[in-house]
This record gives sequence, C-alpha cells and structure tokens, in this order.
Amino acid sequence: MSSTFGTLFRVTTFGESHGRAIGCIVDGCPARIPLSADDIQPQLDRRRPGASALTTPRNESDVVSILSGTDRGQTLGTPIGLTIPNADTQPGDYAEMETVPRPSHADFTYAEKYCLRARSGGGRASARETAARVAAGAVAEKMLSVFQPVQIVAWVESVGSIAARRPDLATIARADVDATLVRCPDPDAAPRMIAAIEAARDAGDSLGGIVACACRGVPAGWGEPVFDKLTAELAHAMLSIPATRGFEIGEGFGATLLRGSQHNDPFAAKPGGGIRPATNHCGGIQGGISNGEILFFRVAFKPVSTISLPQKTAAFDGAPVVFAAKGRHDPCVLPRAVPVVESMAALVLADAFLQQQVQRIPHP
Amino acid sequence: MSSTFGTLFRVTTFGESHGRAIGCIVDGCPARIPLSADDIQPQLDRRRPGASALTTPRNESDVVSILSGTDRGQTLGTPIGLTIPNADTQPGDYAEMETVPRPSHADFTYAEKYCLRARSGGGRASARETAARVAAGAVAEKMLSVFQPVQIVAWVESVGSIAARRPDLATIARADVDATLVRCPDPDAAPRMIAAIEAARDAGDSLGGIVACACRGVPAGWGEPVFDKLTAELAHAMLSIPATRGFEIGEGFGATLLRGSQHNDPFAAKPGGGIRPATNHCGGIQGGISNGEILFFRVAFKPVSTISLPQKTAAFDGAPVVFAAKGRHDPCVLPRAVPVVESMAALVLADAFLQQQVQRIPHP
Amino acid sequence: MSSTFGTLFRVTTFGESHGRAIGCIVDGCPARIPLSADDIQPQLDRRRPGASALTTPRNESDVVSILSGTDRGQTLGTPIGLTIPNADTQPGDYAEMETVPRPSHADFTYAEKYCLRARSGGGRASARETAARVAAGAVAEKMLSVFQPVQIVAWVESVGSIAARRPDLATIARADVDATLVRCPDPDAAPRMIAAIEAARDAGDSLGGIVACACRGVPAGWGEPVFDKLTAELAHAMLSIPATRGFEIGEGFGATLLRGSQHNDPFAAKPGGGIRPATNHCGGIQGGISNGEILFFRVAFKPVSTISLPQKTAAFDGAPVVFAAKGRHDPCVLPRAVPVVESMAALVLADAFLQQQVQRIPHP
Amino acid sequence: MSSTFGTLFRVTTFGESHGRAIGCIVDGCPARIPLSADDIQPQLDRRRPGASALTTPRNESDVVSILSGTDRGQTLGTPIGLTIPNADTQPGDYAEMETVPRPSHADFTYAEKYCLRARSGGGRASARETAARVAAGAVAEKMLSVFQPVQIVAWVESVGSIAARRPDLATIARADVDATLVRCPDPDAAPRMIAAIEAARDAGDSLGGIVACACRGVPAGWGEPVFDKLTAELAHAMLSIPATRGFEIGEGFGATLLRGSQHNDPFAAKPGGGIRPATNHCGGIQGGISNGEILFFRVAFKPVSTISLPQKTAAFDGAPVVFAAKGRHDPCVLPRAVPVVESMAALVLADAFLQQQVQRIPHP
Repeated sequence: MSSTFGTLFRVTTFGESHGRAIGCIVDGCPARIPLSADDIQPQLDRRRPGASALTTPRNESDVVSILSGTDRGQTLGTPIGLTIPNADTQPGDYAEMETVPRPSHADFTYAEKYCLRARSGGGRASARETAARVAAGAVAEKMLSVFQPVQIVAWVESVGSIAARRPDLATIARADVDATLVRCPDPDAAPRMIAAIEAARDAGDSLGGIVACACRGVPAGWGEPVFDKLTAELAHAMLSIPATRGFEIGEGFGATLLRGSQHNDPFAAKPGGGIRPATNHCGGIQGGISNGEILFFRVAFKPVSTISLPQKTAAFDGAPVVFAAKGRHDPCVLPRAVPVVESMAALVLADAFLQQQVQRIPHP
Repeated sequence: MSSTFGTLFRVTTFGESHGRAIGCIVDGCPARIPLSADDIQPQLDRRRPGASALTTPRNESDVVSILSGTDRGQTLGTPIGLTIPNADTQPGDYAEMETVPRPSHADFTYAEKYCLRARSGGGRASARETAARVAAGAVAEKMLSVFQPVQIVAWVESVGSIAARRPDLATIARADVDATLVRCPDPDAAPRMIAAIEAARDAGDSLGGIVACACRGVPAGWGEPVFDKLTAELAHAMLSIPATRGFEIGEGFGATLLRGSQHNDPFAAKPGGGIRPATNHCGGIQGGISNGEILFFRVAFKPVSTISLPQKTAAFDGAPVVFAAKGRHDPCVLPRAVPVVESMAALVLADAFLQQQVQRIPHP
Repeated sequence: MSSTFGTLFRVTTFGESHGRAIGCIVDGCPARIPLSADDIQPQLDRRRPGASALTTPRNESDVVSILSGTDRGQTLGTPIGLTIPNADTQPGDYAEMETVPRPSHADFTYAEKYCLRARSGGGRASARETAARVAAGAVAEKMLSVFQPVQIVAWVESVGSIAARRPDLATIARADVDATLVRCPDPDAAPRMIAAIEAARDAGDSLGGIVACACRGVPAGWGEPVFDKLTAELAHAMLSIPATRGFEIGEGFGATLLRGSQHNDPFAAKPGGGIRPATNHCGGIQGGISNGEILFFRVAFKPVSTISLPQKTAAFDGAPVVFAAKGRHDPCVLPRAVPVVESMAALVLADAFLQQQVQRIPHP
Repeated sequence: MSSTFGTLFRVTTFGESHGRAIGCIVDGCPARIPLSADDIQPQLDRRRPGASALTTPRNESDVVSILSGTDRGQTLGTPIGLTIPNADTQPGDYAEMETVPRPSHADFTYAEKYCLRARSGGGRASARETAARVAAGAVAEKMLSVFQPVQIVAWVESVGSIAARRPDLATIARADVDATLVRCPDPDAAPRMIAAIEAARDAGDSLGGIVACACRGVPAGWGEPVFDKLTAELAHAMLSIPATRGFEIGEGFGATLLRGSQHNDPFAAKPGGGIRPATNHCGGIQGGISNGEILFFRVAFKPVSTISLPQKTAAFDGAPVVFAAKGRHDPCVLPRAVPVVESMAALVLADAFLQQQVQRIPHP
C-alpha cells in the first residue's frame, strides 16, 4: 500500500499538490498525549515554501487542522485526522506536462503505471505530499516526548560540492541548524552554500546535496531483527522522500574502506554498571537494533529536476521538444528537506518504540 | 513484524543459526508456476559457506526441501513451505558470547532487546538466516520468469579499497560473475581482491566492500508512490541484509555533486513509437516507479565483525577482557552476499509485479 | 490497527461523532474509474439520520467532499480523501456520560481501555463513524461496477419478533427495499414493523432485528483459503458494525439441524458447458471461496442501547443512579443499518476482487 | 494474505493435508516465555483423528517439533517454527476428485480460483490444516498464562437437534468437557449425541452442531475500536475454521427478540471500588472492547460434507455421476472442533493482549 507507513504508529496520507487539500490520518497514537495544532505547526512552518529567498516563491500558508482524535488538548487513542488546505494552486502552470513529460520527474512513470496523464501538478510525486509527513512526524515527536524523550536533529551537510564540517552530534540542536537560511550549522560553509544556490538559481539550474541526521535518546533495544531492522526501516523511510538517491548509516559507504579491526566497536564499562559501546562506527544500530548510542545517518538528494534551462527532450508522442520549466520551484530542496528527514525519522522511532513495548511487559 | 517481507508476494522466515533447521513460508505465489527444488538449490549453493578458500570452512550442505504448496511440479497457489536443515552446528564455539558480547555483533543489542543472552550463535542476527531469503528469492525469480522475465545480476564491485571497473549493465551475467572466486567480473581487480582477502584472513582481520546489482527487463510502472516507492522497498530490502551500511541508486551519493542540467534524464523517441529516457542517471526509477530502463543500485557491506585479532573490550558485567574470535568465519562476506542481494531484489520485484496487476485489469 | 480495513482495496477512517468532521482515505482504488461525489452521496443519504419518523431527529446533512484522488471525474490511482462535516453537534447532550457510563454503550470499556473519559459522544463507538464506511463502500461499488458488476442488496428481515418473508434473492432491488420506511420489502411485515418501532419509541424503549443481504454477480473464485476466507472477511466486516451480535451465511445456524445429505449442494451441468451448484445451501461460499452463486448472509443487531426508560445503574464511582437517556436517538437502527451492511459487503468484495487478480495474470 | 493471522501475535501456516508436513511460524511471541513441545502436544492430541469411535479412523500421530525460537526451554523472541509430519497419507483415496468435485467441498471453488485441479486431498481446505492452528494456539495460551491467565474452554452445545443444557460459564473446565467422548459436559445430552452420531455414521450420513466457548480472565480494555473490534476478530477467527456457518456473541441472534430495556447491561458497584456490568447479555464485549466479564460465543458447524450415501451430482465436465465418498471421514466434526475453536480464540486474545500494551505504557 503506497499511502500507509508504520506498523503500530501508523500514518496514512492523501492529497495531490494541486487538489483541495492534503492531509493524513495518524492511527495508533496512545491516549492521553497532550496535543494541539501548536505542536504540529512549527515543523510545518520549517518545511513550507516561501520562507526564504532560497526557496520557491510559491507560498503555502500550510495551516494544519486537527479534525479528530483529541479532546481538551489530549489524544483519545483514536485516529487523528489532519488536513492542510492547498491555498496557492496554479493549475495553469502544469498544463504542458500532459503532452511533455518533464525530464526526471514522475510524469512519465506515472503515465506508464496508471495509463493516464494527470494534470495535477505531479500528483503524489510532488514534494507537496511531504507536508502530511511532517504533520504526522510532529505527532510522533510529541508522543515520544512523553514516554522516551528523543532528540532528532537534521541539517544540511553538503550542497553540491560544498561540504560542511560535522557538528558535535551530542549537542547539535535545531536552533543551531536554523541559524542559517540554508540550515547548515557550519558558519563557514553556510554562506558558500547560499551563494552556490543563488548562482544555480540565476543560471536556471539546480543543486543537490546531503542531509545528515542525529537521533539522541534512543535506548538500546529498538528495532526488529531480520526484515524490519531499524536500519532497514530508516532506509525505507528516507528513500521514500522525493528526490533521495542514497542512505548510509554510521560510517556508511566509508566503512567498506576499513578493516574489521578498525571498524569494530568494542565495549567498555559504563559508570553505574553495565556496558556500552566505546566507539560508535556503526551509527547506533547493531544487528538492526539500537545500541543506546546516537543514531547517525546521511541521505543523498539529487539536484532538483525542475530547471528553467532549456532541455532537449521528447513529448509523449515522441516529437522532439525543447523544454524549459516555467513554474515556481526551488533551486535546491536541501533546506526544506531537513524537517522532512526529521519527521520520517520520528515516524520510524515512534513505531519502534511502540513495537518494543511487547518485550517490556512485566513478568509477574 | 520482523520475520515477514512483502505485501502480495510474501515470505516469512524462521530459524536460528544453530537450531535444528531454518526455513520459510512463501505465500502469495500464483498457481501453476513450474517449481521444484532444482529451481531453488543453485542459488543456495552459491550462497553456502565452504564453497571456496575465501569463505568460512563451516560446511553447510544447505539442501532445501519443499514441504507444501506444489503438486506434480507446479505451484498450487497455496503457501510454499521450505526447510533447510542445520547440518554442521558446533554450539561450543559460541559459549563465550553469553558472558562477553562480541564487538559489533548483535549479542549486546539482542540482550538489551530481549533481556536474555542467547547461546545460539547470534540467533537471528547470524548470516545463516539469509539462506531462507535466498530460497524464497529463487521462488520469486521462478515466478517472474513465467510472467515477466527479469534478469537480476549482482557482483562484487569493491573489496576494501580495491574497486573494479563497472561491467556493461546490459550484458553482465551470473556466469561472468562466477568466473572468479570473489565474484568480481573485472579480471584485473578480481585477483587483487582475492589476495587482499587472503592477506586479511592471514592477519586475523577482515574486509568490507560494495556489491552492485543490475536488474534488466523490469517494465515501466512498477513500484508504488509515496511510502512504498520501488527505491524505498529496495533500500529496505538491502539494509535488512546483515552487515549492510548503505544503499544508493543510479548516481547515488555522486548525484549530489551534479547539477540538475547534468543529472536530468531527458526523453527520446523509441523505435516503434512512444518514448524512453535517453539517459539513466536515476538508475531505472523515477518518482519511485520503474521507468523501463535497467535498475542499478549499490550496497555497502562493513568489514566482517568476527576477527581473530585480539580486541580490548568488556564483558557484560563490565570487566575488561581481551576477546579474539575462535570460530570459523569469513574474512569477507562479499562473494557470498552476491546471491543474497539478488534474492532480496527478486522478492521486491516479485511483489511490485503482483501489486501492479491491479492497474492492469482490462477495462471492458 | 483499528481504523483500517482491507488488504488491497483499503479504507482508513477517522472521526468522532461530535468532532469537526469525519472521513476516510480510500487507498488502492485502480486508476481510470469514473468517480464523483454523486456516486457517493446517494448511499450516504440512505444512511443519514433525520430521514424519517423512525429515526433520530438529529439531522446531519452528510455532504461528502472528495479532497483528492480524482481529476476530471475519474480516479488517479492515488488515495481518495473523503470528508463529511459534523454539522449538528450538541456536546451538551453528552456531558453526563463523563460521570455515568451509559448501560451497554462503550463508555465504560473505552474508559477502561484508554484510561480517560471522553465527552465526545461515544467517540469512535458512535454509529456516526459508519458514515465514513458508507462513503468508502460507495467507491468500492463504483469500482466493481466497472470491472465486475456486482449487485449488493440488503434489507430488514426482522424487527423484534416480526419477521418478513424472504424475497426472491435473484431479483430483490434497492428500490424494493426503499419502498417502505423500514426498508423491509415484505408489504405485510413492513407496516407491523413500523408500528412496533413507533410503539417502542413511545414507550421509551428500543428494538433490534436482523438485516439480510444478497450479493449477485460474484463470480466463482473470490476469497482466500484458510484465514481470509470470504466468509471470515464478511463476518469480520459485519461484526465490526456497531450493535451487531451475530452473523450467519447460507443456512447459518439452521444448517446445524440438517444432515449432510440434506445440506450438501450437488453439482449440475450448466448450459453452455461446465457445472454449477444445483442448490445453494452454503450461501455462495465453499471452502471460503465464492462458488458463483448468490451470496446470502444475515446479521443480527441488538436493540438500541440508548433508551429513555429509566435504568438502575451505577456511576463510574460506584454510586447508584437512575439513568434515562435525554439525547436524540433511534428507537431501532435497522433501517439505517441497511446501507452500512451493503457498504461493508462492498468493501469485502472489492478487496477480494483485487486479490483474485493475482490468479488471473495471463500465462504467456 | 490467506495464510497469516494476527497483527502482533502472528501465525503463518503452511501445508496440504497429504503433503510431507504441515506447520506454522509463530512470530511476535515475547521472549522469556517457558515453552516446550509438551505445552503444545496436549491440544494437538485433543484435535487429532483416530482418538475415538466417533472420529475418522485416519490416524495421524501429530507429533509437533519446535524447529526454532526457543533455547533451554524458553522463547527467544524470535519466530517459532513448528512442524507436524503427515504420517498417514493415502493419496489414492482422493484420485476421483480430479474428475468429480465432491459436493459442498472446496474442490470446485479451488479449481475455479486457481485454474487447476489438485489431487492433494482438498489442499488447504482440508481440516488437516487446523492442526497448525492448534499448535499456534497452544503457544498463545502459554504466553497468556505468563502475563494474563485466561481460561478458554469450548464444548459441544448441540449435535443436530440434540441440545445440551448450558454449563456454568464461571466454572466449566476442559476436564468436564473431555469427560464424554462427544465433548459435551451435559451428562444427559452427551449419550444421546453419541448415539445420534453413530446412527448417522451407520446411515452413511453426517451431522452438524454448535460449539460454545467461554473465555474467563480477560480484563476490560482488550480489542480495538471500529474495524478490529474484539467481536469482529473473533468472528473472523471462527468463520475461518472449515465447515463453520455462523457466529454469535452473548445473546446473539436471540438479542434481536429483546427490547433495549431487557438486553441492556446496567452497571453495579464492585467490591473494592469501581464498577462492573451487573449482567452480561453482551457476552463480555461492548463497543468491540472487552468489559471484564466472561466472553461467551457460539459457532455453528454444518454437517460434514463427506458422506458415503450416494449423491446425484455432476463431474467437472458436466456428466451426471452418482458420487459416494469412499475415504475415511468423521460423521461429525464437533468433538474435534472444540480445541480448534479454543485455539483460534487464544490467537485472537493473545493478539489483543499485545496490542493493548500500547495503552499501558507508564506515563512518567
């Protein structure tokens, strides 16, 4: 099923980019969690377009409404219905895509899959659908905050070839990330990234980059063996975000260059008793199960497909055309992808937390 | 659920590395597919240990039995029960792990998750469980061969820092891959990889590397939008394999260094009508849905955690110990990982194929 | 998961009886199905309260909005978001239930489950949630009408001890059912049922009864063996409707009084070739799979729990109280349950239809 | 998916009646539950044929093997693989069914579904598959016994028109049930039932009947609202058992004859504080959620389809034939159905118990 994510903490989304509204149903959130729209709106605001000169001027106010599942400011245990109106639709911008599939968009593959050509702004392939994920992720974060406070912080690690220094994973906070327009906490790299994005925009071109993410406060024991390893769930979550091309955890692809004696994480005594890994090359997950250390992973985003530079391509009927995007689009999605990555991580962790309760039932 | 993979073509596995048997139930395979053990055994033989000087001398004959789901050599549409006996278990080798968690294994995280210390050879975290995946994957490949012949070929692209030249994705075959012990089709890199693995083994150390995979014959339209993108399912499948650290598709992390004008795949007329992407930077999937081109992805494997070099670590009780693995283990899993990667890809594609049938119902 | 029904044709609902709106997401509907609100509204109108003197005067206009999933009057293959505003809420009516759980309602069990007392009109246990099922069921019927026209007709077979004659299952139509206020097609029984309901209402009491349902046009082969037999799915669907107490198919409990030689359905040649069951004691399903005959089943509804007669009961704190419902409620849900039974049957059949496609893939 | 049951406590079965083995994988059982084959075998022995003069002389020893998921007598949290060999197969008995579908069996519907005619003894429609359910149910009961001792007792309430007096639901035990060959605890009815079964057998005919079931010790709060009501799950479970025709809970269909004032269950103070329902017309479930009282439900079984009386029917090709079963079959499945009903109830309750843990997480 394409529109549902999660086993126990489960979100089902709906909505095309240019329909009347998008939204989701969050099912499985336990009762008695304090929740209001104010818990959801901040992450939506971080994701919404129009927030800075770096992003598309398309301006969605993205105001979330809670239609069900709460009463007097707390959850009821019943499904939480959330909607976000589509305020600023301009269908005319998208008329051309019925005859010419935009290069590297989903126009062609959707047409092949569904045997129709939708005019509705890329349909479910539009980044607009990620607003529903962010709303659901905020609910997940709120739920976790009650039971098992987890801090999930993502940031822009690179834009094109401009790479940032890695921040201290133990302390990096969203405020640090938001200190720059580009959501990169490295004060040296950030202005260069911004300049590169502006230059790409001015050239009618686009850039990709890498979002890194750290999750603190995840205790040992989350995740399921074999097919639903925490690593696998995170990879699934991240590669479901539009424009992603890769996922790696811990040392990632770099681990392939190390020897076992270099990459292994030995254990050390923990103050107060027990042990913990002395190093964390694995990025917080071993055998698919969290080891109590900081989760660290990276997600690759391709350069935005929509560019105003003319591209030699073909119409659906095979006729050669020169296509140049006319709509309003981001030259680089990285800054706005940051809360989306955090939200998907929150959904994975909320689900892992609930699933692990089965092992936490007190034995009489 | 940790032990089930797939929505319509669905495999559920069981078995620890040192119990009586491992196996799986393949549910959802359509009726009237020719199937016998001979369709399954070859991939199991490629995966089994003891096949070469490069792998653990632990010798599992890995003979699969079909317990149900077929009659007179074809599937019945009912669940296919498969078992593989565990022939060569030596529980004594693993006694130490009850007091000392092996560095970078799952001994510690399993103990934290389940509040017990299993003596059974790493339990479900052992690479032994992948035999059940390979058996199920062979059924998936057989089913696809009837309806939509897909060629899935994986190979070793790098071992440590030794990288192979990329083969021609349009022609690379399993026979080419199996031509060298290390399952690398590059005749220059293969001997160097073998030498590096032997040197690591002699040094009591281990190596990681990258497995690449190409899938040919996947038509446009497979995969689901949003959460179950084909990319996301592949990433989930690959990161569920033991020892994996990363996944990337098409240009992968390298795509982050390109501009949109460089990375975009424009369309071109196809002989006989219609269009196809003129380039395939995306690796065969756009908007989460296959575009009819060759799927290409890469999977990073960490160096094997079990090394005979002494490691300074701690016992479960915090006492410092020097641990050196005594069992029989691979210095590099890459050659044996090749059929596992292929099998997981087959499971993903078989499921995507069946799910796509819903869009292929004839309209009267 | 409490709020999702179906495997391939899948509906997820949300909404309490007195929140801002209720609704659902229908996921898995194939693309290119003609669909507009006009296809959904008629069944909603049949279900809505306030339609006759027999039902609660609570008047919900129940106007459905399609928020996503269609374009230019046909489905896109993407999730269909549907909402129905809650127009006529009177929360004050329900204040008492925070201290006194209504007898035979879910107030007590919800409080025990969620450790809270909701004021929101019975929450998800209210019959109001069935409006979302009816909306989804209408989409299912529309989808079936394109590929495999199925006629699903339910009617009131009994109210209290007043039982109707069974209509001809081969011809009974919704128009016949709607010919009487009580939705009973037997012209003799209907007026007596209406009189009984009015008498119960005037006495401050309530009545139960039986809804019967026939499904024509289901071909042989739908349903899955073992756990997801079509019978089991129908039973699940029907017993998920509020106030239901029993389900039986074909001869049902009456079959227990027959001998095998009486109950068995032998086969007979079919004009044009092949065979079909000569009788249909089984109600259209054998071994969990449809046999091509008319599906026939019956659903028992208890008398409505909300009565204005005073009841000696206890408050949550144990204090004895005399409780008499003050709100606006149906003395008998049977007439309004008819479209709900039809809708749940439609959801089961739509899902079974899609699942069966896997066995219908052409072998080359 | 036809072969998997349950959300968190999940069983997947395999096996035809005349293949090499049947079995199942139980996934989701928490770790550290004492479990050995001795916990499973007794219920299998109650279910197996050949146990009395009333059942088929086909003699299956039905010895279960645990292949995985336990170590030193307790569960590991990993999937539990269970197999039961098919010891006494006589394929020759079933050859005729390839040309003549047995009346009221699944031969016809399976052939229509899968487009093939299997010779394997009715395939998955055979009652033999219920052995795997019983094995899984025994694991579920064992798990519940650790955390929340639940007593599940079923018995034969009627055979044909011979009905037993209802036992005291608060005390009825399996030993009482097993005191008679027919598993009816009413000493007056039991011998008459036995005589009726023997007479039917001698006449080459068969009988149906009703199995009743009581579940004690289920606390208030189990079950999910809306689609997965505990009632709905029980109905699903019971109607998935071969030969079932109906399910009712509490007063069941009889509730339709009562008025609300008669059927409602008012509350009363409970010694020690709080309240409980003073009566239990509902059978222990209100709004789909357990109310802390005894669960009580009834399941209708049709008369066995296999009879040796000659039946006028038709071959697959339409040719008229007189069919008389030659194999070894039960004249009445009721006694053997008792542990199957208990096992399916155990699976439903184990799953409901685990799902409810999400609402039991301590709020700090």
